[in-house]
Amino acid sequence: MKKLEDYVRSIPDFPEKGIVFRDVTSVLQDKDSLKMSIDQMQALLDGKDIDVIVGPESRGFIFGVPIAYNLNKAFVPVRKKGKLPCETIEMEYALEYGTATIEMHKDAIKPGQKVAIVDDLIATGGTIEAITKLIESLGGIVVKIIFLMELEGLHGRDKLKGYDIETVIKYEGK
Amino acid sequence: MKKLEDYVRSIPDFPEKGIVFRDVTSVLQDKDSLKMSIDQMQALLDGKDIDVIVGPESRGFIFGVPIAYNLNKAFVPVRKKGKLPCETIEMEYALEYGTATIEMHKDAIKPGQKVAIVDDLIATGGTIEAITKLIESLGGIVVKIIFLMELEGLHGRDKLKGYDIETVIKYEGK
Repeated sequence: MKKLEDYVRSIPDFPEKGIVFRDVTSVLQDKDSLKMSIDQMQALLDGKDIDVIVGPESRGFIFGVPIAYNLNKAFVPVRKKGKLPCETIEMEYALEYGTATIEMHKDAIKPGQKVAIVDDLIATGGTIEAITKLIESLGGIVVKIIFLMELEGLHGRDKLKGYDIETVIKYEGK
Repeated sequence: MKKLEDYVRSIPDFPEKGIVFRDVTSVLQDKDSLKMSIDQMQALLDGKDIDVIVGPESRGFIFGVPIAYNLNKAFVPVRKKGKLPCETIEMEYALEYGTATIEMHKDAIKPGQKVAIVDDLIATGGTIEAITKLIESLGGIVVKIIFLMELEGLHGRDKLKGYDIETVIKYEGK
């Protein structure tokens, strides 16, 4: 039987030379691996007391919403600046070249709520670090961070010390 | 008991003056309305023979993936140009000012596959019309198109004649 990692398509030199892109669309476009990916991520939350799932635009939506649905939790999207219509808080973070800004609705998390962050991939960890700050500035408590895939060679966990992080598939490289 | 439409937040003059933005994040950030929204959309597919769910970036991911999971189907994302790593087909369509281009992986749909398109909202219908063309150019058959919300005053259905379209919540205006 094929394992989940067999469904991930690896594309050398995308989006730029030297990077091996781990493509999640090949996982989604097969009904068996779609189910496996969500079930295996969700299993990483077993036994955790959670109120809200937070996922960043746009691949965090892909895994975050079905897990929220299955566990009967709320889902809060983190979006790129300018896309959320109500009052937001924002956080800027560094990219390889320049910066990016993400936002969350101010009323999306209530003080004391227990939050799990869900995304497809951890690379350098910059986006997720910014998301933890957004959640905590609203008084939320990050109780778990889960990913489908991890690029261990980029040491994203170094930015997220003290958090409970788990991933389904680990790649040694970048 | 609150109905699903009671959870939709309406924001006047966003993203520009004269437009009432129907915000889906307020539906998602309550666990009961999140479940209702997905269940009520999914019910619109009852009795349909479907192979693949297609959803556009990024709010189509929010509803499309949980429905694909629940029905044990594949999910194919439609993305803005430049984000999909493998060979794509693309389609340009008109916006109010200028144009936009969306893409789908060439291998995402096989000839003869039966497809349901899922998105949060139908406004002018331009994006969805472009998606039907992408699917059909790959040999897929669009058997159903469903939305959480419809802005009837924008007459999006006029662009989609001949398709089986259903929506959960209808707004008379724009």
